[in-house]
Amino acid sequence: MVYGSWDKAPGKPTVLIYAHYDVQPVKESEWDNPPFSPKVIDGKIFGRGASDDKSGVMLTIWAVEAMLRTDGKLPVNVKFIFDGEEEKGSPNFKNFLNKNKELLKADFALNADGSQYSETTPSILMGLRGSAILEFNVKTANTDAHSGQFGGKTPNAAVALSQIIASFYTKEGNVAVEGFYDKVVPTTLEEKEMIKKVPYDKSDDMKLLGTTTETGDTTFSPLERVWYRPTLEIIGMQSGYTAPEGHANIIPGSAMARITCRLVNNQNGSEIIDLIVKHINKNCPAGATVTYKFTKGGAAPLKFPTGTKAFNYVSDALFKFYGKQPLQIAAGFSTGALIDIKETLVIYPYSLGFEQADERWHASNEFFRLSSIRKGQLIYCYYLQHLADEEGKLKK
Amino acid sequence: MVYGSWDKAPGKPTVLIYAHYDVQPVKESEWDNPPFSPKVIDGKIFGRGASDDKSGVMLTIWAVEAMLRTDGKLPVNVKFIFDGEEEKGSPNFKNFLNKNKELLKADFALNADGSQYSETTPSILMGLRGSAILEFNVKTANTDAHSGQFGGKTPNAAVALSQIIASFYTKEGNVAVEGFYDKVVPTTLEEKEMIKKVPYDKSDDMKLLGTTTETGDTTFSPLERVWYRPTLEIIGMQSGYTAPEGHANIIPGSAMARITCRLVNNQNGSEIIDLIVKHINKNCPAGATVTYKFTKGGAAPLKFPTGTKAFNYVSDALFKFYGKQPLQIAAGFSTGALIDIKETLVIYPYSLGFEQADERWHASNEFFRLSSIRKGQLIYCYYLQHLADEEGKLKK
Repeated sequence: MVYGSWDKAPGKPTVLIYAHYDVQPVKESEWDNPPFSPKVIDGKIFGRGASDDKSGVMLTIWAVEAMLRTDGKLPVNVKFIFDGEEEKGSPNFKNFLNKNKELLKADFALNADGSQYSETTPSILMGLRGSAILEFNVKTANTDAHSGQFGGKTPNAAVALSQIIASFYTKEGNVAVEGFYDKVVPTTLEEKEMIKKVPYDKSDDMKLLGTTTETGDTTFSPLERVWYRPTLEIIGMQSGYTAPEGHANIIPGSAMARITCRLVNNQNGSEIIDLIVKHINKNCPAGATVTYKFTKGGAAPLKFPTGTKAFNYVSDALFKFYGKQPLQIAAGFSTGALIDIKETLVIYPYSLGFEQADERWHASNEFFRLSSIRKGQLIYCYYLQHLADEEGKLKK
Repeated sequence: MVYGSWDKAPGKPTVLIYAHYDVQPVKESEWDNPPFSPKVIDGKIFGRGASDDKSGVMLTIWAVEAMLRTDGKLPVNVKFIFDGEEEKGSPNFKNFLNKNKELLKADFALNADGSQYSETTPSILMGLRGSAILEFNVKTANTDAHSGQFGGKTPNAAVALSQIIASFYTKEGNVAVEGFYDKVVPTTLEEKEMIKKVPYDKSDDMKLLGTTTETGDTTFSPLERVWYRPTLEIIGMQSGYTAPEGHANIIPGSAMARITCRLVNNQNGSEIIDLIVKHINKNCPAGATVTYKFTKGGAAPLKFPTGTKAFNYVSDALFKFYGKQPLQIAAGFSTGALIDIKETLVIYPYSLGFEQADERWHASNEFFRLSSIRKGQLIYCYYLQHLADEEGKLKK
């Protein structure tokens, strides 16, 4: 954890700003330029973490720096907490908060690991899915076996793994794990209205990713699926000899897969993992045994309220710059640290960040728009001043 | 190709000896000792290729060396041809043979990449399965996608690949690819008699590999399945981020698998590959496209005749040492070079090698028994002398 503060405004409110400096792993061969040597091309800076979330770290520092250089002081007290484990679900963050409640005490909190709907349309994050991660290993033999010598009488771990993975899904693209949807609450009418206001076009996703079809249960709209429905995704899978060149004529004796679930409403990560383990054990082909590696650091789902001062100050800052009311959107991803802040410090960390959804978070050739740096700096400065002014008026 | 010869016995027969010096790739982390620094433990030499097939290369050289040192000459002419591409199916061997027919011309041929049934029971190889290899890549997007941002509306290549692989098999463990078995000829009664003479115990395999069940269509006996029935095995499979530590929360946009088929009778490698490609294209989930990498170097199946001089000389040499008639066995693996020798030089390359099936060919911790070196040397010497004597008598 990296902590820093400016506390020379006694009697004024304190704002806690969260961001994270760690990044997702890279597959270096898929990058056009080295992922850890940032390169500016056409007004975009390319590099791992450029958007998610070095942008949040730098923007907020630069906003505060600008105010200090201009005015010699800030209108409110500011505390920075920069997380180094967000990408693995911030497994130690809650503990850290509990141990440092006094140090981190604040009246308002912002999450700088956030995004705007587009370059010209602002948005406020009203909900996050939770997440849970599971790794499992299918074993059919103590060793790989020669595919000629043993092929036809010996179980194949790659095949067993594939059969297990195929069993996770119904033909309609839903999750076939028993009980998986039991704690999912139907989308409310208010949430459906929120979705209607978002000018979402599924062909944009398809252009962005190069996909040829949408997937999932199309009785729900795409945004409803991503914001309010849970998922079970295979995020990695390996068996046998898979180096790019050559091949090994073996029947693999073991195979590995990693699962990430995105959770909603009352779904609980460890309950969901239990259901998946039960499903695997039940659907495991003869001759295969499965072992599990339970990854800590899943996150619970989280929803943010409207109509609070904290919501309004963020909304006002965005309105001031963009000249229009921000869309209220939810998100399909998880930021475990945010629910920790909410639960431990008892403040809602509203998101105020300037990433954009096409900036290839977690993928190769991630980038951040240089124009968003200046924009973010201005909006953060306005937010701090506006909050100080409004809170000052309330005190009179 | 490495070629060497001793041709100072004019008028005497010529024996061509085949072996290979290349090896399978290694997964170094699974080896107890470095795979390319041979180590002797308890009368066994451990190292990649120790058995398959450095043993064949060294044994035959040492046999000839012993005779030359003792007698100053060999009883017949000997030609060595050592292949450097056997493990990828000897893709250039046939061409090489065609270009060097005169150089390689011989009366008899032996394959030193062979095995004996056990330490005390000799065997002669009467049949080999063929092989065909196919790599395919499933693509659902141009890039990996954030599993939170896109999970629920975006196809997952790892899932699509698993579904395709699961579709390859029937519930009974047979291959579900249409037409796959069309050119398989039923096992003959003679072949079934051959199988009955082999003291095979399936629990030996299970102990050796640590498997808990046999697989495949158990209406055929295990040896019948491995010798006379074809297979479709997944030999490698990869998708997403799979480094041992950490995880990437992505929906993989691509996934790769490699297939090896073992072929029998009249099955033709490229016909089988065509059938598999048709099956994949038909069973490919919506949103996924498949591209193929066709690997050269498959082998046709091959059967060896009994009752020939060539068969008898090998059988005699084994009988002389072991004191009993060799078992006639077939094998589940493929040695493409052998069918090339048979077709191009028009001689049957009977196998005379001293590997054993528990020596972990293609797997980690491969080893060769030191006692087999002396044994192989003696039997090769006897074979060459015996062949010279018998062929001499025929000329009288």
